[in-house]
Amino acid sequence: METEQKQVLAIPGKNDYSEASRQDRLAYIQKQNAVAASRIGNTSLEAESMRGYIENFIGAVQIPVGLAGPLLFDGENAQGLITAPFATTEGALVASACRGSRLLTAAGGVATQVISENVHRAPSFNCESLQDAVRLKNFIEQHTPTIQAMVRQASKYAVLLEIVPVVHGRTLHAIMHFETGDAAGQNMVTVVADHLSRELIKLAEAQLGLIIRSFQIEGGMNGDKKVNFYSFIKGRGVRVAAECTIPDSVFLEQFRLDPNAFYEHYQRGVAASSLVGGMGVNVNIANAIAALFVATGQDVASVHESSIGYLQIERESDGLYCCLTLPSLLIGTVGGGTSLPTQNEALNLLDCAGAGKKARLAEIIAGFCLALDLSTWSAIAAHTFTDAHKRLGRR
Amino acid sequence: METEQKQVLAIPGKNDYSEASRQDRLAYIQKQNAVAASRIGNTSLEAESMRGYIENFIGAVQIPVGLAGPLLFDGENAQGLITAPFATTEGALVASACRGSRLLTAAGGVATQVISENVHRAPSFNCESLQDAVRLKNFIEQHTPTIQAMVRQASKYAVLLEIVPVVHGRTLHAIMHFETGDAAGQNMVTVVADHLSRELIKLAEAQLGLIIRSFQIEGGMNGDKKVNFYSFIKGRGVRVAAECTIPDSVFLEQFRLDPNAFYEHYQRGVAASSLVGGMGVNVNIANAIAALFVATGQDVASVHESSIGYLQIERESDGLYCCLTLPSLLIGTVGGGTSLPTQNEALNLLDCAGAGKKARLAEIIAGFCLALDLSTWSAIAAHTFTDAHKRLGRR
Amino acid sequence: METEQKQVLAIPGKNDYSEASRQDRLAYIQKQNAVAASRIGNTSLEAESMRGYIENFIGAVQIPVGLAGPLLFDGENAQGLITAPFATTEGALVASACRGSRLLTAAGGVATQVISENVHRAPSFNCESLQDAVRLKNFIEQHTPTIQAMVRQASKYAVLLEIVPVVHGRTLHAIMHFETGDAAGQNMVTVVADHLSRELIKLAEAQLGLIIRSFQIEGGMNGDKKVNFYSFIKGRGVRVAAECTIPDSVFLEQFRLDPNAFYEHYQRGVAASSLVGGMGVNVNIANAIAALFVATGQDVASVHESSIGYLQIERESDGLYCCLTLPSLLIGTVGGGTSLPTQNEALNLLDCAGAGKKARLAEIIAGFCLALDLSTWSAIAAHTFTDAHKRLGRR
Amino acid sequence: METEQKQVLAIPGKNDYSEASRQDRLAYIQKQNAVAASRIGNTSLEAESMRGYIENFIGAVQIPVGLAGPLLFDGENAQGLITAPFATTEGALVASACRGSRLLTAAGGVATQVISENVHRAPSFNCESLQDAVRLKNFIEQHTPTIQAMVRQASKYAVLLEIVPVVHGRTLHAIMHFETGDAAGQNMVTVVADHLSRELIKLAEAQLGLIIRSFQIEGGMNGDKKVNFYSFIKGRGVRVAAECTIPDSVFLEQFRLDPNAFYEHYQRGVAASSLVGGMGVNVNIANAIAALFVATGQDVASVHESSIGYLQIERESDGLYCCLTLPSLLIGTVGGGTSLPTQNEALNLLDCAGAGKKARLAEIIAGFCLALDLSTWSAIAAHTFTDAHKRLGRR
Repeated sequence: METEQKQVLAIPGKNDYSEASRQDRLAYIQKQNAVAASRIGNTSLEAESMRGYIENFIGAVQIPVGLAGPLLFDGENAQGLITAPFATTEGALVASACRGSRLLTAAGGVATQVISENVHRAPSFNCESLQDAVRLKNFIEQHTPTIQAMVRQASKYAVLLEIVPVVHGRTLHAIMHFETGDAAGQNMVTVVADHLSRELIKLAEAQLGLIIRSFQIEGGMNGDKKVNFYSFIKGRGVRVAAECTIPDSVFLEQFRLDPNAFYEHYQRGVAASSLVGGMGVNVNIANAIAALFVATGQDVASVHESSIGYLQIERESDGLYCCLTLPSLLIGTVGGGTSLPTQNEALNLLDCAGAGKKARLAEIIAGFCLALDLSTWSAIAAHTFTDAHKRLGRR
Repeated sequence: METEQKQVLAIPGKNDYSEASRQDRLAYIQKQNAVAASRIGNTSLEAESMRGYIENFIGAVQIPVGLAGPLLFDGENAQGLITAPFATTEGALVASACRGSRLLTAAGGVATQVISENVHRAPSFNCESLQDAVRLKNFIEQHTPTIQAMVRQASKYAVLLEIVPVVHGRTLHAIMHFETGDAAGQNMVTVVADHLSRELIKLAEAQLGLIIRSFQIEGGMNGDKKVNFYSFIKGRGVRVAAECTIPDSVFLEQFRLDPNAFYEHYQRGVAASSLVGGMGVNVNIANAIAALFVATGQDVASVHESSIGYLQIERESDGLYCCLTLPSLLIGTVGGGTSLPTQNEALNLLDCAGAGKKARLAEIIAGFCLALDLSTWSAIAAHTFTDAHKRLGRR
Repeated sequence: METEQKQVLAIPGKNDYSEASRQDRLAYIQKQNAVAASRIGNTSLEAESMRGYIENFIGAVQIPVGLAGPLLFDGENAQGLITAPFATTEGALVASACRGSRLLTAAGGVATQVISENVHRAPSFNCESLQDAVRLKNFIEQHTPTIQAMVRQASKYAVLLEIVPVVHGRTLHAIMHFETGDAAGQNMVTVVADHLSRELIKLAEAQLGLIIRSFQIEGGMNGDKKVNFYSFIKGRGVRVAAECTIPDSVFLEQFRLDPNAFYEHYQRGVAASSLVGGMGVNVNIANAIAALFVATGQDVASVHESSIGYLQIERESDGLYCCLTLPSLLIGTVGGGTSLPTQNEALNLLDCAGAGKKARLAEIIAGFCLALDLSTWSAIAAHTFTDAHKRLGRR
Repeated sequence: METEQKQVLAIPGKNDYSEASRQDRLAYIQKQNAVAASRIGNTSLEAESMRGYIENFIGAVQIPVGLAGPLLFDGENAQGLITAPFATTEGALVASACRGSRLLTAAGGVATQVISENVHRAPSFNCESLQDAVRLKNFIEQHTPTIQAMVRQASKYAVLLEIVPVVHGRTLHAIMHFETGDAAGQNMVTVVADHLSRELIKLAEAQLGLIIRSFQIEGGMNGDKKVNFYSFIKGRGVRVAAECTIPDSVFLEQFRLDPNAFYEHYQRGVAASSLVGGMGVNVNIANAIAALFVATGQDVASVHESSIGYLQIERESDGLYCCLTLPSLLIGTVGGGTSLPTQNEALNLLDCAGAGKKARLAEIIAGFCLALDLSTWSAIAAHTFTDAHKRLGRR
C-alpha cells in the first residue's frame, strides 16, 4: 500500500466556497470514480452560500416531502389544525401519520406541553488526586451563582441552569446545563463552556491552590449524538409531551379495533421493551422525528439521541389515556440547516421559522409522534401492519 | 373545539400519485397555512414515481452534499482510496472527516470487515399459561429446522438464522433472526415472519393441542427504530468493524497532538460513557452515519438505531491500535430510497448500488466513522474543537 | 506512613485451619483493636471443618431466622404447602411474606416452573488483528460439537450448551454457557472453561495457524457477581417463574384494596422503573432472595446478580394475572455453604438438600418472591406501607 | 387443590415475640416438614429481643467469619492498619482480600473519601392531566425551601437535600433526596416522605386548586432494593471512593505479574463490561460487600443495589493509578441488624459501632473492595485464578 498512499490526491478547493471549486470537485469525483455526479450537481443551492453548512460542497440530494395531518392541537404553543411536511423515502409512513392524526383529531385533539429544556456540555478537569477532585466539586457547588453570572456576561442567549459535578477518580466532570434560546445550541454551549472552564481553572487555582493537570471541553458525560440514561432521565434539548384521552367509541370507529385488544397488546409491548434493555417505550417515533428533522433542517445526526420516548397508555373505564413524552428533542428554529431554502420553507409551513418558535416546533413533533405511534401500534394489534407495508412500502 | 373539529378538511388526493393531486396538495397547504411551498414544490422528482416512497407527495427538500476523504481502505469488501458524498447541514463535519481520513491514510489505511448480519422480527404468542408458553418455547426449539425450511420456500432472499424464544408470563416472544440479502430488510422480515407465525400456530395447535389466545407480528422485542441492549449485544443489520494501528509519528504529524495525551483523554471518555449509562463508546459517529444515510437513500429514521458503536483504542509501545465496531447498521443497496435519482447516484459514486454491495457499503461507513471519530476526539484533546466549530459551524 | 507500614503484623495462621490458629487470630484481633471478638468467637462451627468455606476463621455471626408461609405451590417441582425459613434482620419482611402467601394460597396457589438454566464463563483470546479474531469466531462456531465432546470427557457434571463468540477489536470473547448439575457452578465452569480454552488455542494454532497473543479465563463478559443486560436477557443460573391469577374477590378480601387501584399503581410503577433505567420490574424481591440465600447457605454475594426480576401483572375481567420471572438465580443445593450445619438444616426444612433439588429450590424462591412483592406493592397502594414499617421495623 | 387449601394451618404465634411461641413454631415446622430445626433453634439470640428484627422467630443460622487485612488506610475517616471481619461461605475470598491488602499496604495505603450521601424516596402524585402535573412540578420547584423547613420540624435526623420532580403523563413523581444521619435510613425517609406528601397535597390543593387523584408513598422511581441508572448516576446511600497509586516495582513484587499485562487485561475488561450492558466496571466487589454486610448487620438485601462500582485504572509511566468508586452503598451504624450481638461486635472490631461512624464504615468497605478487586483481576491476568479456586474453594 506504500505506493498507493503516495498517490493520494486531495479533494480540490479546501476552504474554498466558490462555484469554480465546486466544479473542480465535481470533475475530481468523476475522475476518481468514473461516475458523474450530475444529478447531485444539478442543484439550486449556491456554492457561495454554503459556508457554515458544509465543506467541499458539490450539490444536493433531494428527499421527497409529503403532507401529514391535519392534526388538531390544543397545546401550550401549538393550537388548531396543523398539516406537516414529512421528508421520507419510506412508504406507508405518511399514510400512517395521517391515520393517527384522524384518530386524535376525532378524539378532540392533542394537548401538548414543553416540560423543560436544557442542553449540556461536560468539560472534565484532571486533578492530582481523588481528594482534589472532591475539593473542586465542592468549590463548583459553592460558586455556581458566580459562574452563572459569568454566563450572563459572556452570552446573549445561553442561560446556565445548573452544574452537576461528578467525581470519578481524580477527574472532575462538570456537567453544565444551559438554556439556549431558539437555537439547538450545541455550538453555543461549547463556546460558553470553554470560556467557563478556563475561568473556573483560574479561580480554583487562585482560591484553592488546586493544580489542574489538564482539562477538556468535553470529558464524555455529554449526550451529544449519543443515547444515554443521563439524558433520558435529565432531559436534553426539549422535553415535551403530547396527551390525548381517546373515547372507546372513537377508537373503535377510527381504528376498527377493540380498545381492550389494543391495550393488552400495548401492555405486553411495555414488558418487551424492558426485556430487551430498551430505553422507554414506543414503536416507531423515530420515523416521525426523522421525517420532520429532515424537512425542517434540523441536525439529522441528532435523530439518534432525539428518538427516545415513552408512550404511556392507561385504561380508563371508557377510553384510553395516552401520553407520549420525548425527553431529549434536539431542535432549533434558527441556526444550522434551518435557514436553507427548502428547509426554511418547511418551517414556515409550520409557522415555526425564527425566534420564539422552538417550543411550538417541539409540540408539533410530539403530537405527530403520538399520532404515528398509535397508528402503528394499532396496525400491529389489528393484523393490518404487514398488509399496509406490502401495499405502500413496495414498488 | 367541537366546531373546529367539524371543519377538518382532509389532505386531497389520498392514494393518488398523480401530478394533478400533487398540485391540489400544494394548493391545499398554501390555503391552510397562508404560506406557499414553492421551493419544496420545485423538484425534479416526478409525482407518478413516488409510489412506494411516500404518500401525499408535494415536492422535495434539498440537502447539501460535500465530499469527504479520500480514505484508503484495505478491507474485505472495500479497497483503495474512496471519496464519499456526505449530505449534511452541519459545518465542520465534512472537514473533520477529511482530517481523520488523512490520518488513517497516512497510517496505511483502514482494515474493514463485516462480522455478522441479521435483521430480526419478534412475533408474540399469547398462551393460556406460563406452562403453555414454556411448551411452545420447547416446541420452537425442536422445530427450528422445519421452520427454516419453510422460509426457504417462502422467500427468495430471506434466510432464517435462528429463533430465540423468550417466555414472559404466558406470552412467548419468538425473536426471528434473518439474513436479508441486499435490502435493509425490515419489510421482508415482516412478511416472512407473519407467514411463519401463522404456520407455527397451526403446528402448535395440531401437534401440542396448545391454544394460542392471540398473536402479533411484533410483540416489542424487535429493535426496529429503537436502541436497545439486545441489538447492541446480538447485532442488528450489519455488524461491521474498522481497524487501524496508527504509529505515534504519524499521529503526531497529522494531528499535532501527543498520542499519550490523546490516549489519556480517550480513556477518561470510556469511563464517562459508562457513568452516564451510554451504550458503547464514541464521540460522534452519528454524524457520519446520518450524512451517509441521507446521501445514499437509507431509511433516515434508522440513524437512531444504527448510530451505536464502540471505539476501542489500545496503547501500543509506539502506536495506537484503534478499532471501531458498529453492531447495528441498518442499510441496504436496493429497496427503500436507494433507487431515487440523487441517492442512487451517491451509491454509484461509492460503487455501492445494487446487488452484492451491502457489505461494501457497511465497510465504507465504518471506515469514515472511524476517521471522523478520531478527528473529533483528538480535536477535543488538543483544544481545537471549540475553535473549529466557531470557524466552520457558524455563518 | 513509612514507619507504620514497617510494623504491619500479618494475621497469624495463614493456611492453617486448626483451632489453635483460630485462637491465635482471636488474640491478634483483640490486640489490634482493643476489642474482644468473644461473641463471634463463641460458635459451634469447628475450625478444622472450615477448609473450603473460609480462610482465617475466627467464629461466626448469627442471623435470626423466622418462618414465612405457608404458601401453596402447584409447580413442576414444588407442590403443596411450604413454610420457609427466612434469615433476616429487617422487621416486617417475614410478616409481609406471610401476608402475600395467604393471598396466593387463597387464590389457589402459585404455579412455578423452571424455564432454562445456564452458568457462563467468558474466556478472552487476544489475536493479532480484527481479521484473526473473526477467523477464530468462525472456527469456534464450526467446532462447537467438538468442544462439547471435550466437556463430556472433562467433567462429570458440566454440560456445554452453547458458545457465543463476540469479536471486539482483535479480541475474541467466547461466552461459554454450561449446565452445572446441582451446584451453583461458578467454580465448576471456571475449571472446565480453563481447560477448554487451552485446548481451543492448540486447535486454532494447529488448524488455522492463528497466533493467540494471550488468553484470560475471564475477559469480562461474564455476569459473575455483576448485574448486566446480557444475563438479564440470556439468563444466568436458573431462570424460573411463578404465576397466579388472583380473583378480584380474593384480592379484596385478603388485601382490603380495590384491585383496580392496585393495578393502576402497578402500571405507573412499571413506567417508573423504566424512567430510572432499571432492569425489569419489581418492588423488593431482593428481600426474599437475600433471606432465603442467607438461610440456605447460598453465596450471599450472588444476591447482587440474582435479585433481578420482572413482575408482570395483567388486568383480567374479574382478576389479576400475575407472573414473576427471575432470570438469573444463582443457586445450588450442593457445594458452597449448603453443607454447613444450620444452612443444610434450612435446606432440609424445604426438602431441598442435596442432589436433584435445584429446580425445586428455584421454584420455592420464585413463589415467595411473588408473595412478598404482591404484599409490598399492595401495602404501598393501600397506604399501609409506612405504618407497617413504623410498627414492625423499629425497636 | 380446593381441599388442601382448606387445611392451611397458619404459623403459630403471630405478633408474639415470646420464647413459648418460638417453641410452638419449632414444633410446627417439625410437624409440617418432618424435619427438626434443632441446629437453627439452638441459638443464643433471645426470642423476646427479636421485635423489630424479624417476625415468627425460630432461631439463627451461623455464618463463618474470617479476618481480612491488615490494610493500611489513609482516608478522611479511616486511618492506619485495619483488619476486618468477613462473613462468608466462599473459600478463597478472605485469602484474596488479604493478598490485595498486602499490595495496597506495600504501596503506601489506600486513600478513601466519602463524596456524597443521600437516600431517596419517590412518592407519586396522580393529577388530572399532563398540564396539572407540570403545574405541580413547578410548584414543588418553587416551594422546596418551605418543604425543607417542614423536614427540619418533622425529623431529628433527616435532612432534605433536594426534590427532583419528574412528569410522566399526568403523574408527578417527586424524588426526595435525604441525608439520614447514622442510619441506613430507608424507614426514616419513608416516614418523612409520607408526611411531606400529605402536606404537599394540602398546599397544592389550597394554593393551586389542583386536584390530586391519588398519591403513593412510592411511585417506583426509588432505588430501594433495585439496581438502576438513576442511583448509579445520582448516588444512593453513601458514594465513596478508594484510591491508590501502585508503583510498578511493588506490583511486580507482590503480584508477580507484569503491570502492563495487568493493565491490558483490565482495559479489555472495561470494554467487555460495556459490551454486556453492565453498570460500571469491576470483577467481584459484591464478594467483599456481602461479607462485610453480613458481618456488620447491614440489610443483606441491599447487597443487590450496593454492589455497583467503577474501578478506574490509569497507566502512569511507572505505576498504576487505581480508584474504585462505590456510588450506592446502603449502610448504617445504628438501626437494623447493627445492634444484634455478633454483628455489633463486628462493628466494634472496626471501630464503627454507633453514632458518627457511617463514613468510616463506608471508607473501610471501599478500601477492602479495592483490595479484593485488584487481587482477583490480577489472578485472572496471571492465570492463577483457576488454581486458587481449585485449592481454596473446594472441600
